[in-house]
Amino acid sequence: MTSHTPPAFRRRSPGPVHDAVLDRLDAWWRAANYLSVGQIYLLDNPLLRRPLMRNDVKPRLLGHWGTTPGLNFIYAHLNRAIQERSLHTIYVAGPGHGGPGMVANAYLDGTYSEVYPQIPMSEDGVRRLFRQFSFPGGIPSHAAPETPGSIHEGGELGYALSHAYGAAFDNPGLLVAAVVGDGEAETGPLATSWHSNKFLNPVQDGVVLPILHLNGYKIANPTILARIPESELLDLMRGYGHTPYVVSGGFDDEDPIAVHRRMAETLDLVLDQIADIKAAAVAGDLSARPSWPMIILRTPKGWTCPKEIDGLPAEGSWRAHQVPLASARDTDEHLRILERWLRSYRPEELFDEAGAPAARTTSLAPEGDRRMSANPAANGGLLKQDLVLPDFRQHAVEVPSPGATIHEPTRVLGGWLADVVRANPTTFRIFGPDETASNRLGAVLEVTDKQWNAERLPSDEHLAPTGRVMEMLSEHQCQGWLEGYLLTGRHGVFTSYEAFIHIVDSMLNQHAKWLKVTKEIPWRRPIASLNYLLSSHVWRQDHNGLSHQDPGFIDHVVNKKADVVRVYLPFDANTLLSAYDHCLRTVDYVNVVVAGKQPTFDWLPMDAAVAHMTRGIGIFEWAGTEVPGEQPDVVMACAGDVPTLETLAAVSILRAEMPELKIRVVNVVDLMRLQSEDQHPHGLSEPAWDALFGVDRPVIFAYHGYPWLIHRLTYRRADNPHIHVRGYKEEGTTTTPFDMVMLNDMDRYHLVIDVIDRVPGLAERYGPLRQRMQDARLAARQYTRQHGEDIPEVSDWTWSGATAERAPDTNTGTGHVSVADSTGGDNE
Amino acid sequence: MTSHTPPAFRRRSPGPVHDAVLDRLDAWWRAANYLSVGQIYLLDNPLLRRPLMRNDVKPRLLGHWGTTPGLNFIYAHLNRAIQERSLHTIYVAGPGHGGPGMVANAYLDGTYSEVYPQIPMSEDGVRRLFRQFSFPGGIPSHAAPETPGSIHEGGELGYALSHAYGAAFDNPGLLVAAVVGDGEAETGPLATSWHSNKFLNPVQDGVVLPILHLNGYKIANPTILARIPESELLDLMRGYGHTPYVVSGGFDDEDPIAVHRRMAETLDLVLDQIADIKAAAVAGDLSARPSWPMIILRTPKGWTCPKEIDGLPAEGSWRAHQVPLASARDTDEHLRILERWLRSYRPEELFDEAGAPAARTTSLAPEGDRRMSANPAANGGLLKQDLVLPDFRQHAVEVPSPGATIHEPTRVLGGWLADVVRANPTTFRIFGPDETASNRLGAVLEVTDKQWNAERLPSDEHLAPTGRVMEMLSEHQCQGWLEGYLLTGRHGVFTSYEAFIHIVDSMLNQHAKWLKVTKEIPWRRPIASLNYLLSSHVWRQDHNGLSHQDPGFIDHVVNKKADVVRVYLPFDANTLLSAYDHCLRTVDYVNVVVAGKQPTFDWLPMDAAVAHMTRGIGIFEWAGTEVPGEQPDVVMACAGDVPTLETLAAVSILRAEMPELKIRVVNVVDLMRLQSEDQHPHGLSEPAWDALFGVDRPVIFAYHGYPWLIHRLTYRRADNPHIHVRGYKEEGTTTTPFDMVMLNDMDRYHLVIDVIDRVPGLAERYGPLRQRMQDARLAARQYTRQHGEDIPEVSDWTWSGATAERAPDTNTGTGHVSVADSTGGDNE
Repeated sequence: MTSHTPPAFRRRSPGPVHDAVLDRLDAWWRAANYLSVGQIYLLDNPLLRRPLMRNDVKPRLLGHWGTTPGLNFIYAHLNRAIQERSLHTIYVAGPGHGGPGMVANAYLDGTYSEVYPQIPMSEDGVRRLFRQFSFPGGIPSHAAPETPGSIHEGGELGYALSHAYGAAFDNPGLLVAAVVGDGEAETGPLATSWHSNKFLNPVQDGVVLPILHLNGYKIANPTILARIPESELLDLMRGYGHTPYVVSGGFDDEDPIAVHRRMAETLDLVLDQIADIKAAAVAGDLSARPSWPMIILRTPKGWTCPKEIDGLPAEGSWRAHQVPLASARDTDEHLRILERWLRSYRPEELFDEAGAPAARTTSLAPEGDRRMSANPAANGGLLKQDLVLPDFRQHAVEVPSPGATIHEPTRVLGGWLADVVRANPTTFRIFGPDETASNRLGAVLEVTDKQWNAERLPSDEHLAPTGRVMEMLSEHQCQGWLEGYLLTGRHGVFTSYEAFIHIVDSMLNQHAKWLKVTKEIPWRRPIASLNYLLSSHVWRQDHNGLSHQDPGFIDHVVNKKADVVRVYLPFDANTLLSAYDHCLRTVDYVNVVVAGKQPTFDWLPMDAAVAHMTRGIGIFEWAGTEVPGEQPDVVMACAGDVPTLETLAAVSILRAEMPELKIRVVNVVDLMRLQSEDQHPHGLSEPAWDALFGVDRPVIFAYHGYPWLIHRLTYRRADNPHIHVRGYKEEGTTTTPFDMVMLNDMDRYHLVIDVIDRVPGLAERYGPLRQRMQDARLAARQYTRQHGEDIPEVSDWTWSGATAERAPDTNTGTGHVSVADSTGGDNE
Repeated sequence: MTSHTPPAFRRRSPGPVHDAVLDRLDAWWRAANYLSVGQIYLLDNPLLRRPLMRNDVKPRLLGHWGTTPGLNFIYAHLNRAIQERSLHTIYVAGPGHGGPGMVANAYLDGTYSEVYPQIPMSEDGVRRLFRQFSFPGGIPSHAAPETPGSIHEGGELGYALSHAYGAAFDNPGLLVAAVVGDGEAETGPLATSWHSNKFLNPVQDGVVLPILHLNGYKIANPTILARIPESELLDLMRGYGHTPYVVSGGFDDEDPIAVHRRMAETLDLVLDQIADIKAAAVAGDLSARPSWPMIILRTPKGWTCPKEIDGLPAEGSWRAHQVPLASARDTDEHLRILERWLRSYRPEELFDEAGAPAARTTSLAPEGDRRMSANPAANGGLLKQDLVLPDFRQHAVEVPSPGATIHEPTRVLGGWLADVVRANPTTFRIFGPDETASNRLGAVLEVTDKQWNAERLPSDEHLAPTGRVMEMLSEHQCQGWLEGYLLTGRHGVFTSYEAFIHIVDSMLNQHAKWLKVTKEIPWRRPIASLNYLLSSHVWRQDHNGLSHQDPGFIDHVVNKKADVVRVYLPFDANTLLSAYDHCLRTVDYVNVVVAGKQPTFDWLPMDAAVAHMTRGIGIFEWAGTEVPGEQPDVVMACAGDVPTLETLAAVSILRAEMPELKIRVVNVVDLMRLQSEDQHPHGLSEPAWDALFGVDRPVIFAYHGYPWLIHRLTYRRADNPHIHVRGYKEEGTTTTPFDMVMLNDMDRYHLVIDVIDRVPGLAERYGPLRQRMQDARLAARQYTRQHGEDIPEVSDWTWSGATAERAPDTNTGTGHVSVADSTGGDNE
């Protein structure tokens, strides 16, 4: 963005808004309203150049009118301000149901015909524009990826301000006009997103101008904010840290020109105030967080539609929410009302002979990239620069032999992320509720700070007016900010608790849908992937127990389209580094990385880790006991850090107790590899699968999450019935690591029992070992109950299973190390 | 609740708070603090009757101190108020991390020892109380179902006020003290939950007293609300519609007694004001929504812990969040600090010779059911009365023959729900974002209103100060209110869009965990089930398209413990009635019912519907073409209304084209029946499964949601590889019903193709039919693209597939009826 040399925000030359300007504002508004109504209702006769007939009306009337005239009104006024002040502005339409309006404005702008040449600026173009709207094979009824200028899908409500702030961060010359619907304003995410202003830096970031649009009604109810005293509403906005300005009008047949005047004057005032704040900030004259202005716009719902239909109020009521005239194709009466409504906008003045918008209609609009529908910030892929990624190998931990050393994987990752922050000082941010330090990414805070514009005290650490780390205790904000940041061409990471990332399940849905659709839209350029780092995972909630456990976010993500989602389960510091380097290079994905922050054995040296990550799945030859050229007796598979540890511990028992057993250890770091080739681009081919898992070999699979997902992913594999999965079962009220895996039957002893029970012939021979394993579990549990910590034979366990031939450097480990640190567990 | 004849709220007799009372407040507070610190740190030496030794300290220090002293402080003051005013009060501890505090107060109350006799009121009891906390085999570190007096799981944050209001609805004599942490206050759900006060009726409902506890810090950051000017915070609270009162103290070594005095006086003022509002409301003297008081309590984080540890601030800093002294077992220095800290509470004054709390310590506490930890409202199952359920058969639709008539299932259900409302005027509510009418439950509004205490206009419909329908555009509020309502012993339904119910995924997690745990706690009595009605489902989003589609909530729910969740997919009006009657009779479940609101064929008369719902799965003998005693050639299975329709339409084609084919039609209305007996209590036995699905028969399964779930549920079935599932694939940008099923390959023509492809021998003989089916799809798509509605052969289709012998009364249907109504689809 900085390469676009954005203009400064500046005061307007003083002077009144001339009547001619108001007329032109009104012309744009009427044209946008006309085009919006036309999209909802008309199949043909787009400019009413003949009387309207029933067949001109669509057979199925879909879409939403209620919010649209307000969105169009604001768009017209912003156009004037952009033109007069050379602003660089994007428009976030919180009420996504105003899809017809956003499309209409983009068409008037000229952008629509530029990106969709099949919809030209002509009568035929208008016909096509109308027909395609919410029509089979056409465009959605909401603001959507298909809508030029939009970064905000109009499905689920609540994220307008979060997206707007995400867009504004690190875009110092950008004005983000964010229209918040009064319905949307009732959602939780929106209600807290007003506080985003405590995280905006007035020098380095852009400006968000919230416009709370009170049209008073939802589907069938009034809105709360329209039904509290205005003094209370102003208190609320002041309490959120804003200076509110009210524009109210359009009621009781008020002439719209009068409302245009009030809006234009208020917008001038507000933009001057913004210019003053910006200037003071740049000059270093701001002593405290500024109280940014915001606008409350109160207009009738469905403004300009018929006052009454069938004897009931339409304009200004919830009945205008959707399609106010349901029977325009079926009854002459409704048809006549529709025609009068359409003609009330005087289309003959607004379009020229050819059917293109007349010059007077669009004379207030900015040009080129300054058009809100053409602003490159709303097509972030155009602006995206690849991250400068320092060599993660520089942060590799030394692994003299598997399991000989111990590191906290996220702490190691933090070192590299600090380098990433340093190398990308304006295009990369880390978002999280409150956990950068808790997740042991503290190294990042040695090179940057947590951005915070509320009050600071001398005792605060790492809080500063500007910084790359954004922490607010709302997963919704973190996700919304990051989405806005990515959609405008930047990069980022969201770190959170695995269990609580479900808070944003539905936001993930919406973003994944956006990515899916944009892949089919050529003019939408790829954006950076949405990267999750879930490092307070379900197996190590020693501080929190059952309430903080649920690994189902992975399941949720895997339900999304295969070409959009990726899931990685790195099991040590080096694989985590390699995984994250990969994720930060990708575009248009949702990458979910689940990785521990607790001290964990290092299993692979960096070269091996990179190779393993590249394959996504592979055999730990150093751990197994295969005989070359022969099928193994059992495949011990694992995915995730704790499952990998328990699997290797089980293998070490098996190696000691059953030296003749041919064990293969397979680790899965890229979960999508388990699927078939035709199900996921990362899917393993059938021969590759057979080469790894053998044919008809029993597979004991220890998995990080709900066991069913492994069955689902491997469903089409021939030997699927032979896969026995151990995973999370929701039995986790405990406070020690080994007790947790025992409660869920995924512990080393249980895995050995699984092998005995499932490999033909072992049950008969190894009854005593099976009993010993059960006794070991009992002893471990009793010890834990008595001492409050895990039994030493578990907490002090180290890998020493490999024979000299296979891994000549084993047994050089650090001896009595513990993976069950005494004060560990996740805090919050 | 009304049967408990709750006392009126009343003013206190005027007069100062005496010093002796302040001393007793402080004694309780010190005792609760002592017991809280003891839980976090001590294994032994519980009353410090000998010097503290390292071995007295737990090896793993888990839990959270930071918020605890504030919670204890508030508890002490509420105790006094309850005793003085005979209040009926429960305590919602938003900062669930204050688990040790809530346990400590319940222990001082005496309740703890009553429900857990193994933890008596003695030195040994204190020892056990300490040891069990966050210890293997013990209790969780958060407020949890195990905590007497709690209705609020202390895991995920944000729902304190929603739960509090849910508890207050229809509890006119109840005061719900809701402590909101300033970390929690940053979450979206909490930020909007303040607006709940616009939904509270001051006569018929109880009172929520929000206490915003500003201790200033989260895990590693300050909180927003503690770092904005107090004037802004007061504006915010006024903007939320409250009258705020500030109590601040405990900083700079201020004597706690002074803070006790300010808190006591403020609480008196606030409770007097509440009494005045209540009295005015009951007298009919309230002309507008009252501005209920609320308290802002500002105290140091970790108040009373050591000021400094290792040279860094502890009290009053984020470092006090969790366990301020990490090395008390490992270093003498920390051990001494811990001992000084514990002794600072003067335990020798607080406990008697036997180790029980001294009389003076607890003299301010209320007794019996008035104790907040023993209040039956916080163990709602004690108060729950079964609903009076009118006979749903009275609302049955006549079904002269399958598919002969058409109804909107939810509209029919609405008629019965209206009866339920009438029969249960104070114990049943319907919650939803804004969709009671849109979901066609409008009959309910003929017998009740939507409760709304913000401004009303003459043009409003069905808004009233009191009513059984609660609509706020926040799924979080609806869920939170309903949870609070259920947890205090009442009943309810949550209606919402299927796609957007993901918004509450993580809340569902928390409630399901609550139910799972309560089933193992004998003193927690069963509460009414949490019932979802998802009637704007993913297949009929004609107005909204892809953005409103995601059937994955079912998948999410099925990940929960089997004994807690139930999923029903009724396919017509009568099965929906029967399903919902069942759901409203159950306890301790999460019931998910997905049902259409669009006009749908009626398939089963009521008796058959009840029988089918009772079995949960069954054969549609009238639809199939089996020969008694022979295995069918193919099983056509279906679950959900649209899949059932398409399956029957496919069957009608097959019957006409392949009269010799032996078809069995199996419908699944209770999804859990698909699982094995050992996986779910509803699971079918293996013989029952085989009797329905045959052995080795090809099964073509049309399913409402993501296809994988069917594979998952049937995973252990022997003939699983023969099940071919069609379902939702996230390909839904469309605006007509049939185009939607075609996009997802679940349409009738495609199902016929599936049969040809999968039943041995058909592919060779029915190549031409296969081609005709493909042509029919193409024609249907082309028609839709051209006309904007579904091809008549689909939209006018009716069931006429049964032969005279099997269903003598078919073909008496209504002729050209359409299930694709022209203005249908979901609004919003």
